[in-house]
Amino acid sequence: MRYKFARMSRQTIKGITTPHGFRAAGGGCGIKASGAADLALIVADRPCAAAGVFTRSRTRSAPVLVGQRHLGATGGIARAIVCNSGCANASTGRQGKADAVQMCRDAAEQIGCDYHQVLPCSTGLIGVPLPMQKISRGIAVLASRLGRGSRADAQTARGILTTDLVTKTAYRAVRLGRRPGKLIHLAAVAKGSGMIAPNMATMLAFITTDAPITPAALKLALRSAVGASFNRISVDQHTSPSDTVLALASGAAGNPKITRGGANFTAFTDALGDLCDDLAYQIVNDGEGATKVFCVHVVNAKSVRDADRIGKAVVESPLVKTAVHGGDPNWGRITTAAGYSGAAIRPEKLSLHIGDQCVYERGQPVPIGRAAARKLARIMSDQKITFRLDIGLGKAETRWLGCDLSRQYITINADYTT
Amino acid sequence: MRYKFARMSRQTIKGITTPHGFRAAGGGCGIKASGAADLALIVADRPCAAAGVFTRSRTRSAPVLVGQRHLGATGGIARAIVCNSGCANASTGRQGKADAVQMCRDAAEQIGCDYHQVLPCSTGLIGVPLPMQKISRGIAVLASRLGRGSRADAQTARGILTTDLVTKTAYRAVRLGRRPGKLIHLAAVAKGSGMIAPNMATMLAFITTDAPITPAALKLALRSAVGASFNRISVDQHTSPSDTVLALASGAAGNPKITRGGANFTAFTDALGDLCDDLAYQIVNDGEGATKVFCVHVVNAKSVRDADRIGKAVVESPLVKTAVHGGDPNWGRITTAAGYSGAAIRPEKLSLHIGDQCVYERGQPVPIGRAAARKLARIMSDQKITFRLDIGLGKAETRWLGCDLSRQYITINADYTT
Repeated sequence: MRYKFARMSRQTIKGITTPHGFRAAGGGCGIKASGAADLALIVADRPCAAAGVFTRSRTRSAPVLVGQRHLGATGGIARAIVCNSGCANASTGRQGKADAVQMCRDAAEQIGCDYHQVLPCSTGLIGVPLPMQKISRGIAVLASRLGRGSRADAQTARGILTTDLVTKTAYRAVRLGRRPGKLIHLAAVAKGSGMIAPNMATMLAFITTDAPITPAALKLALRSAVGASFNRISVDQHTSPSDTVLALASGAAGNPKITRGGANFTAFTDALGDLCDDLAYQIVNDGEGATKVFCVHVVNAKSVRDADRIGKAVVESPLVKTAVHGGDPNWGRITTAAGYSGAAIRPEKLSLHIGDQCVYERGQPVPIGRAAARKLARIMSDQKITFRLDIGLGKAETRWLGCDLSRQYITINADYTT
Repeated sequence: MRYKFARMSRQTIKGITTPHGFRAAGGGCGIKASGAADLALIVADRPCAAAGVFTRSRTRSAPVLVGQRHLGATGGIARAIVCNSGCANASTGRQGKADAVQMCRDAAEQIGCDYHQVLPCSTGLIGVPLPMQKISRGIAVLASRLGRGSRADAQTARGILTTDLVTKTAYRAVRLGRRPGKLIHLAAVAKGSGMIAPNMATMLAFITTDAPITPAALKLALRSAVGASFNRISVDQHTSPSDTVLALASGAAGNPKITRGGANFTAFTDALGDLCDDLAYQIVNDGEGATKVFCVHVVNAKSVRDADRIGKAVVESPLVKTAVHGGDPNWGRITTAAGYSGAAIRPEKLSLHIGDQCVYERGQPVPIGRAAARKLARIMSDQKITFRLDIGLGKAETRWLGCDLSRQYITINADYTT
């Protein structure tokens, strides 16, 4: 009955450079006044398969536009990802696009590759031009410091953060092919804390793997993994212009190649999905001001689209988020959020569980005695809470993750630029 | 350049019983533990034209379902509105529907009319059954106290409130027909503070008028007035299952009858629209925890639907709402909310004014010098702020009203049931 929250990577020395064929570096180049890390560089030893999933915003940032163009131009081949934090290079017009290209040229010159093989990302304040001198100098410094191992991994993870309180990393390994099979590694860094909403959750994630996989298969696997993870979380429903998930596959683990629909494709996609679930959970858990995470598990909806509408409406309702914050089992806020979601709902078919306690069954409120009230209070005081909405109109099912809304969210966001 | 915020009724002795042909009463019947007013009754001397606009939620409350049925059964004729606060009678299953009908029967018995001519409303906590004994007794008491004048008006306005800090009333007069014309009165009470979102804004409003108008014309005028006012405001995007706007027209001002498309129809609809704008502004201004009101004026969108998508996305973005709260001219949050709204946007056509200061012009950020920065800070510190988004893709235009998001909203909503 209870939703199994994503298994989080234990503290580990595995990181973004654990998969064979990658080096990385991170550090501060002076974009952030605080002097904190604000630049990261991930470099593949050789051109490798690359895929990306990007924000669906109509006000896409310059690096998103440039990254999409580069992936198109190369047919899914890349050598590097360069990312700065502290400035999003979004809503910056023509100059912004020129700056995003310049970041790629700077990195390409250091690495020795075509600049179309570099994918740029920026996150931070919107509407402000990039300080290009600092960035160009920073890229040169990082290129000279590229390395492997936990120190390089940690610096890279820190270089992409904005209001995040903690770094976000994940690692998975999977054996592919006939026993004993080849061990392949998947690792990732991510950032995201505010402006987190589906399509995609406002966030960045960079994934490295040494799996041998074609660009087309990598793209398909990435889309599938992102759809079930980053696209079903929300901190504050505000889709960012900068959302980007990039995957680089070096192939260094050795053949046979993973192709679309091939024998190893499913195993690889499952591992990638599991990795993304882990990061998605970490992002919501570190949502701005968040003290609790809740899962909305929608079952028996008429269609996946309807299940998504319901899940999204519930995780984004400020009234549900504040009820979770207050540990208040005010379940009418959940059923009514389903009611305005736009999905097909028939109240007489609708049921709701909070944890394993049924509170609303086929359109009737369940009488709550003292023992059940105590139980509900206990469930609502947990750091992880599951709401299970049974729509009773079909077979479709989705899971959405959200976090509570606290005074701290207001404190963080009422004066971010000043 | 600056949006003209709705003209608010000045403190006036005009109220819900100023239009000829109505009496009203309000008081406490013990639903609220605090002893505050929680019941109101508005009665027309004779059967009169009636129209309603209701929530589009799929989890409509029992009184909404019953009210819709009664208006259908009578073809738009009613004698009374009975409304309680403190308990929404929503998500209450079969018993809820029986209770909503019983409220009507109780009122009808006191007034001496068919119970289908009574329209019920309830607002407050969801999922809890109505305390019918208290309500039946309360209705009898109010029926014996029905009156006209400022005391009856004020008690009625208080009887429908929940977390509202102030009562909400509005009044308009308009002369119809050949000069000097007949003076007709329109008056209203409303409630709404939380669960306020479009379609409709989660709220109740009851309008009385002595205009002589057919039920069909009244329905049309009401739909038009609600569409431009209550359906374009948001406090917290959570559409309530109880939203109801009701209008009763006694016709006591005397003939000629207002009909659809007739000479006086436009003048009446304008006055009704103005009345609703006034109430809509009052509701947002008293939004839970609100300290500021802002208007999103979308111009030159491709279609009204697109303009609405953009307006709604901006007024509901927690990042915009917290920026308004902090007086922070972080305009990237506004352009990017337009970006994820789903509306057609081409960044190179997009411009944004904050008050009369342009900050983003056709896809380029406007350099902000010291003087302009001071001006922006001054505008953002106002209690009323206007954002004007020029989409540059068409001719459609809409205005949306929202309020800031403060710590007080969280305090109010983190433990409402307990």
